[in-house]
Amino acid sequence: MIKHIAAFGEVMMRLQVPDYKLLSQADSLNYSFSGTGVNITGALTCFGHRGSIVTTLPVTPLGDAAQSFLQKLGIDSSFIIRHGQSLGMYFLENGFGVRPSRVTYSNRMESSFNTATHDFYRFEKLAEQIDIVHFCGITLAMNDLVRQQLKTFAHALKKAGGTIIFDCNFRPSLWGKNGHHQARSHYEEIFELADIVIMNEKDALHTLGMYTEKKSERNQLMDLIPKVANLYNIPIIAGTHRNILDNQTHRLMGFLYKEERFTFSNKRTFSVLDRIGTGDAFASGIIHGLIEDFSNQDIVDFAVASAILAHTTVGDTPRATEKEVLQAMKTCSTDVRR
Amino acid sequence: MIKHIAAFGEVMMRLQVPDYKLLSQADSLNYSFSGTGVNITGALTCFGHRGSIVTTLPVTPLGDAAQSFLQKLGIDSSFIIRHGQSLGMYFLENGFGVRPSRVTYSNRMESSFNTATHDFYRFEKLAEQIDIVHFCGITLAMNDLVRQQLKTFAHALKKAGGTIIFDCNFRPSLWGKNGHHQARSHYEEIFELADIVIMNEKDALHTLGMYTEKKSERNQLMDLIPKVANLYNIPIIAGTHRNILDNQTHRLMGFLYKEERFTFSNKRTFSVLDRIGTGDAFASGIIHGLIEDFSNQDIVDFAVASAILAHTTVGDTPRATEKEVLQAMKTCSTDVRR
Amino acid sequence: MIKHIAAFGEVMMRLQVPDYKLLSQADSLNYSFSGTGVNITGALTCFGHRGSIVTTLPVTPLGDAAQSFLQKLGIDSSFIIRHGQSLGMYFLENGFGVRPSRVTYSNRMESSFNTATHDFYRFEKLAEQIDIVHFCGITLAMNDLVRQQLKTFAHALKKAGGTIIFDCNFRPSLWGKNGHHQARSHYEEIFELADIVIMNEKDALHTLGMYTEKKSERNQLMDLIPKVANLYNIPIIAGTHRNILDNQTHRLMGFLYKEERFTFSNKRTFSVLDRIGTGDAFASGIIHGLIEDFSNQDIVDFAVASAILAHTTVGDTPRATEKEVLQAMKTCSTDVRR
Amino acid sequence: MIKHIAAFGEVMMRLQVPDYKLLSQADSLNYSFSGTGVNITGALTCFGHRGSIVTTLPVTPLGDAAQSFLQKLGIDSSFIIRHGQSLGMYFLENGFGVRPSRVTYSNRMESSFNTATHDFYRFEKLAEQIDIVHFCGITLAMNDLVRQQLKTFAHALKKAGGTIIFDCNFRPSLWGKNGHHQARSHYEEIFELADIVIMNEKDALHTLGMYTEKKSERNQLMDLIPKVANLYNIPIIAGTHRNILDNQTHRLMGFLYKEERFTFSNKRTFSVLDRIGTGDAFASGIIHGLIEDFSNQDIVDFAVASAILAHTTVGDTPRATEKEVLQAMKTCSTDVRR
Amino acid sequence: MIKHIAAFGEVMMRLQVPDYKLLSQADSLNYSFSGTGVNITGALTCFGHRGSIVTTLPVTPLGDAAQSFLQKLGIDSSFIIRHGQSLGMYFLENGFGVRPSRVTYSNRMESSFNTATHDFYRFEKLAEQIDIVHFCGITLAMNDLVRQQLKTFAHALKKAGGTIIFDCNFRPSLWGKNGHHQARSHYEEIFELADIVIMNEKDALHTLGMYTEKKSERNQLMDLIPKVANLYNIPIIAGTHRNILDNQTHRLMGFLYKEERFTFSNKRTFSVLDRIGTGDAFASGIIHGLIEDFSNQDIVDFAVASAILAHTTVGDTPRATEKEVLQAMKTCSTDVRR
Amino acid sequence: MIKHIAAFGEVMMRLQVPDYKLLSQADSLNYSFSGTGVNITGALTCFGHRGSIVTTLPVTPLGDAAQSFLQKLGIDSSFIIRHGQSLGMYFLENGFGVRPSRVTYSNRMESSFNTATHDFYRFEKLAEQIDIVHFCGITLAMNDLVRQQLKTFAHALKKAGGTIIFDCNFRPSLWGKNGHHQARSHYEEIFELADIVIMNEKDALHTLGMYTEKKSERNQLMDLIPKVANLYNIPIIAGTHRNILDNQTHRLMGFLYKEERFTFSNKRTFSVLDRIGTGDAFASGIIHGLIEDFSNQDIVDFAVASAILAHTTVGDTPRATEKEVLQAMKTCSTDVRR
Repeated sequence: MIKHIAAFGEVMMRLQVPDYKLLSQADSLNYSFSGTGVNITGALTCFGHRGSIVTTLPVTPLGDAAQSFLQKLGIDSSFIIRHGQSLGMYFLENGFGVRPSRVTYSNRMESSFNTATHDFYRFEKLAEQIDIVHFCGITLAMNDLVRQQLKTFAHALKKAGGTIIFDCNFRPSLWGKNGHHQARSHYEEIFELADIVIMNEKDALHTLGMYTEKKSERNQLMDLIPKVANLYNIPIIAGTHRNILDNQTHRLMGFLYKEERFTFSNKRTFSVLDRIGTGDAFASGIIHGLIEDFSNQDIVDFAVASAILAHTTVGDTPRATEKEVLQAMKTCSTDVRR
Repeated sequence: MIKHIAAFGEVMMRLQVPDYKLLSQADSLNYSFSGTGVNITGALTCFGHRGSIVTTLPVTPLGDAAQSFLQKLGIDSSFIIRHGQSLGMYFLENGFGVRPSRVTYSNRMESSFNTATHDFYRFEKLAEQIDIVHFCGITLAMNDLVRQQLKTFAHALKKAGGTIIFDCNFRPSLWGKNGHHQARSHYEEIFELADIVIMNEKDALHTLGMYTEKKSERNQLMDLIPKVANLYNIPIIAGTHRNILDNQTHRLMGFLYKEERFTFSNKRTFSVLDRIGTGDAFASGIIHGLIEDFSNQDIVDFAVASAILAHTTVGDTPRATEKEVLQAMKTCSTDVRR
Repeated sequence: MIKHIAAFGEVMMRLQVPDYKLLSQADSLNYSFSGTGVNITGALTCFGHRGSIVTTLPVTPLGDAAQSFLQKLGIDSSFIIRHGQSLGMYFLENGFGVRPSRVTYSNRMESSFNTATHDFYRFEKLAEQIDIVHFCGITLAMNDLVRQQLKTFAHALKKAGGTIIFDCNFRPSLWGKNGHHQARSHYEEIFELADIVIMNEKDALHTLGMYTEKKSERNQLMDLIPKVANLYNIPIIAGTHRNILDNQTHRLMGFLYKEERFTFSNKRTFSVLDRIGTGDAFASGIIHGLIEDFSNQDIVDFAVASAILAHTTVGDTPRATEKEVLQAMKTCSTDVRR
Repeated sequence: MIKHIAAFGEVMMRLQVPDYKLLSQADSLNYSFSGTGVNITGALTCFGHRGSIVTTLPVTPLGDAAQSFLQKLGIDSSFIIRHGQSLGMYFLENGFGVRPSRVTYSNRMESSFNTATHDFYRFEKLAEQIDIVHFCGITLAMNDLVRQQLKTFAHALKKAGGTIIFDCNFRPSLWGKNGHHQARSHYEEIFELADIVIMNEKDALHTLGMYTEKKSERNQLMDLIPKVANLYNIPIIAGTHRNILDNQTHRLMGFLYKEERFTFSNKRTFSVLDRIGTGDAFASGIIHGLIEDFSNQDIVDFAVASAILAHTTVGDTPRATEKEVLQAMKTCSTDVRR
Repeated sequence: MIKHIAAFGEVMMRLQVPDYKLLSQADSLNYSFSGTGVNITGALTCFGHRGSIVTTLPVTPLGDAAQSFLQKLGIDSSFIIRHGQSLGMYFLENGFGVRPSRVTYSNRMESSFNTATHDFYRFEKLAEQIDIVHFCGITLAMNDLVRQQLKTFAHALKKAGGTIIFDCNFRPSLWGKNGHHQARSHYEEIFELADIVIMNEKDALHTLGMYTEKKSERNQLMDLIPKVANLYNIPIIAGTHRNILDNQTHRLMGFLYKEERFTFSNKRTFSVLDRIGTGDAFASGIIHGLIEDFSNQDIVDFAVASAILAHTTVGDTPRATEKEVLQAMKTCSTDVRR
Repeated sequence: MIKHIAAFGEVMMRLQVPDYKLLSQADSLNYSFSGTGVNITGALTCFGHRGSIVTTLPVTPLGDAAQSFLQKLGIDSSFIIRHGQSLGMYFLENGFGVRPSRVTYSNRMESSFNTATHDFYRFEKLAEQIDIVHFCGITLAMNDLVRQQLKTFAHALKKAGGTIIFDCNFRPSLWGKNGHHQARSHYEEIFELADIVIMNEKDALHTLGMYTEKKSERNQLMDLIPKVANLYNIPIIAGTHRNILDNQTHRLMGFLYKEERFTFSNKRTFSVLDRIGTGDAFASGIIHGLIEDFSNQDIVDFAVASAILAHTTVGDTPRATEKEVLQAMKTCSTDVRR
């Protein structure tokens, strides 16, 4: 079943230093355009859905390049507003082994998206044309202007009968000092509206300020997630636990909490080529599995396989088709059988 | 005679699309770091002087890369302040033939340099260690903070007996509406202090608001420059007239007004590989010629040859040695004799 | 006035040897995707219209890459059929100076487009959604299958009240021995339907087999074009005369024959960066000028400026906006005034 | 002892997407030229023999580039026929981790080699000048024309007293439906002539249609290979078992069946940089070991080390010298001792 | 405490074949400039010290490029002599897996450094301005001229109260036949002067010709190092034991012998991106730890972490800051806890 | 008529800075292998002859890469000796406009070729297998060892009835002070043996020490060349006059003096992409024209067209076929007719 899925969020320019060099060692950069919304709608486009991005891009050659890039990914650009002069950027220096990757943001707060005013978007009209909208904690962190837009859009969608997916991804650097406290009420407001939330026990503990006596990650998760679902009346919660063995090797386990039951994927260990955007690949997998009415086990396995493939793919935005993800689900079990 | 020459100004990251592509066509960028001050001190370093830059760079990998790049150019980095998070940038799409080059600025107003506060710099102490300081109209255009710093530095230098060179380069986009009017008093204040000014009749007409009955470029120049010199008590004024025949072919003539006499170079036509920073190469040539006590004709011919070589060199910052410029002066006359 | 313009034709992969090297000297290729239809609709998209391509692309990663590329250009991909395994290609070795460029075709006859069967396309339905369709002599040359599809589409469009533009571009290598004779009846059939034809006197002489006593290119043109217009009842004919001074320098003059009157552009001489696709830029300029109801002089000047800009732009497909073309029209006259 | 070894087979252009990107993500390709025959004769040239390729290349810049590339590899190009317009190609998108590599063929059936007619080659004359000829199942799969040429060449060589090596490599996609059945009689015809066959139990089971009651790979091999040797009177059979642990890590074991005895190498696990052409490196190692009269254990160990080095070398064609392979044999045992 | 550290040694051009290719497969090279002295002073500059290099570079564009590169690394270039026409070079073909890296030297003996005469340097004056000087066995191996310069500098420094660090790195290819015997007296002469020596038991056994009855690497080390310290009166000796598991995976353990006590680091296993220069990163870590008065355990752990980070960094010269090394020390223990 | 042409001379590695950058600005180099002998035999191979190079290459990966490269050019490598450790190199920084190109030699005198001893080559045996040998003044300049080898080879060839072509190209930097005087007797010795000499009046005046009262280049040529032909009994002399209008634009005129008559080409002006090796393209054209018995006018026009095409081709070694040169001869006259 093909759905029309939109995301509301910032599009950023990613400027990556090639070949594991530092910015002070190189003289060229590879660039692309991404953002949580881009990654989600780009991934779902590969799964056969219609993906649109609701955002504002500047009226400059950088804005042109960003829009072209989104179109290349297959994302519908007809809801993009072009206004202002500024695009958020981040520079990526890839780590290797124990040397961590470094991200340097530039020009984020002044970007066309973060300075767009409310009247740019016609949220009610948009809400009528879209089945599902994806929001995330990064957009929520930006400023009051953007925050208000997000909420308006969410309410309009709810009214129009659409589905809301919210990804918590809390970024401490964006919220500043005492950030979890700052964020709490905004998160709660969205939790009340959300049909699907991507999170884990860390978000419950820190952002929502909940408490558990459990010690292990797993036990904390199993204690807190049902409470969150209950408290905010959220039908579906999904998320991952990740271990970083080395900059080039990660381990991932996914969970799905639905109809008051947990379903877990196996823990899978894999090589990492490009780690940014892989959480969005997981979320996209969950959304697609739910749309297609997979079994709970298949939903979470599909989402994890989607995330693993995103780790093996250049760029932030997932590029795997449904068929390729299904194949990567099987390869996994093959590996276990060997 | 080796002099210690400093420049006060912003260092920017230049991000150039390779191979005459547009930003929407490419996926990689070549980067370097430049700015009027960088170009002037980098050029004079090649001529054998000691060049220092007085500026503020962010405490980020971008700041590290900028500082490394300046050091590679041979510029003394010991007066650089490291503070803040932001570096100004510009994206360059090279034109070809009738298709003009496009420059897209990013993140300029928020840069570490443009938000640095007065107490970062110890201008009086700096003034004691430096023979010549170069200022320019771009720095003057930034904001009140930077403007005030420029003036404080200029006064300190004057007091310490140093030489002030001021390059008018008026940028309409930075001054906004009614910009010439906005700029006038600030320009006049610096003109009063300057020992050498780089300008032409356009600056006299528009920024200083002077008037002439002459029609041709040349006659306007010869009418207005002596008046400017007289009015603001400026010992030396130099500048150029440029014709753009095509994106790849320019024509340049230089002039020097010194001891109430004009000296003109020949008009020289030449191929253009990289046109940004070539005005700074002219100014550097004037400064070097004056330091070395060349004849007036040699000063202006050296400056024009320096500018022409900068048009044939990759990057903003001139890389020619004195010997190479002297050779390019002769090649010129050879061309004429043929 | 925004129009919906489609083109029916093959999409090819262009594989270009970088840096003026030969295939036997290099080890890498730059690739993009183009074709007359791509160039026309891509250009008109930049002028603000909606451009769609009606074609068949293979069900392979090459087909995916082609479709992504068209989307990046802003071309609507919703009429693209995905079928078969094969994509036409051409390898381009750029010439320099007197050394000519070389084009090597690969896999053209077996391509998905050239082996697509009639039932892939629903021409009548398409005809209802489109204002203008662009056909060209290259498509007509392919084989009976494709030829028949072109004609069916043209008739359907005519019936639905759409506008037909036909570009003669006769390719001797595709028609083989006695090619003009082979082609004549097919060309005539389309001429009968066309509203706008792109051609010059060479097509009248050779393909249509007409005769003139005039000797010069210009006189032949002025003798034959009115006869063609009259004979086939074509309201508008446009085209160019081109002189190749050198691989890097061309001269172009455009003409428009409309309402039984000729309008000519100036002869313009310019530098060439990438010459493929520039005829399509001229045709796109004519179409846009006609849509926007420019004066006849402006139409032909706009078309020539569009063609010149395409010579200065990397890749086959024009990327200039209306504003940029208007500016390049003026630059021309500026050059003349100097 | 230096031998003159030839291979009869197609030369293809390999077009590889750099940096693990997809075709839809990149805009450049690295190219080289290869094929089983190229890999075998290129490898044996590195071992000090004279290697010639018997093939047909097109009369185009692509053909020139292919011939230049073979010459660069040290392969004797004097038996190459230049005819026709078309070269087979394959596009390679490198996989990473669980994401598999993808190969897209283009233009294979129409290639100059696959449409060359019998009279191009003078097989009897060739047979007199060559000691050993390598044929493979890929060439056998092409079409009747090529199949017939292969058989004619093999018979001529047999008559002239030369040695025939045949590598089974069965490609299902080339034989189509019911492929093993289609292939059987052709394989049997070559088996009757061959002195050395590269295969394993899979070929016996599927292509030759043999039967075994054994279950494990190893037992099936040990049951079937002696039967094949006996049935077709083949003096020497060699081959490998391969496990793919991950796209970047493989495990390989080689075997040699000679004088009715099996010799096995250790199982070696190793990192993979470029996996295509590594089977040919194994076959080349077997041929060289036999020519040089190594012990059976050394032959199979040398062949496996040759294959492993090919996995660590860019491009399809092995580049290791005998000395380097001998060193890699030892490194292996070192690893075991640690 | 910021120290002024100099190194006396050759600067070489490193020309690296990209992408694991062989020189016979590629057509481009990446270049940088390095040498033991460059690596040591470059690393210490990153740790906040002032690093100077005492060397001679040619008066050619290669010399200019080398000097620019050192300046980019932050190394003080004011003690560099420019003389002669020749720069030592080495070509690097990166190995992969079992395929070893290959280094091909070029032009080493004729280099400006190796033919510089004694009067170029004013060692006594230098000695007064520098706190610590680093010498190494590579410089000692060059020729009598350079050897004598090294010794003169060392004696001058000793007289001026400076600290001498000597790294044994014995290169058999530079000393030729019977090399250890040739080298012994020169090594002993420097050992008598040195405050810190980088070595392990191999140097004691082979170069110094000492004897031990112990069998294991560890026991030999613990037997011989105290004897060396005692015999030559060396306060501090440090070094490493390295196991190469694979071209991409190494294991390292560091030791420090100080105040007659051994301190050992853990054995750490890690991925290798670029292995050249990593011994210098260890030595730099020891020097910095001693300057900053770290605990013995912290000194050796810091030095090993510095070496590991250098394995993960492009180029010969370490680029990690003190903060980054401290972090990499911790990551290690984290890994153990998991 | 296919001839076997050999050249005796050094093969050098060319390391070119890309994109008009300086060595101090770039971090990568493109490399190839060339030399006068390589250029001559490479060009004649393209014209259909068999070209062999008689030289010594080192036993290193650089030697392997050089040999592979020559094979790629189609040059027969069977007369190449592999010995020693060292290959001559030159670094090329491309100039632009008035900025001249810079060449920096490295490692030339120590190269395997320049230190090869006489017994490496079996000149008498070689002389029997070769029709024509090309020598040049660069080889003659190297050292006594190489000089003696050249002369021995020339005498052996003369004895065996072969044809000797000698290109004067006098390089002042190789002969040092008073170089023309040093060179004279060696040049005269070869002149006595030569059948074809490439030179112009400059060589007669300076190297041979002849005198003329004529002033203009043309008159000096017409006075001196017949005298040289007469004095040394040289049947054929050819050469060029070149004007450098700009780094990117040259003008060339060729002459042929044969049977006591001068034949001149037109003066042709053309764009320059890569100027090194173009004199060798002229010489190759002369040789081919003489072999094929072209008319005198065609010989010199063919040679000039060959040189012009070499200016438009990447790399030192000409790559044009006879057909392409014939076409470039015509293009020239076309240009004149327009």
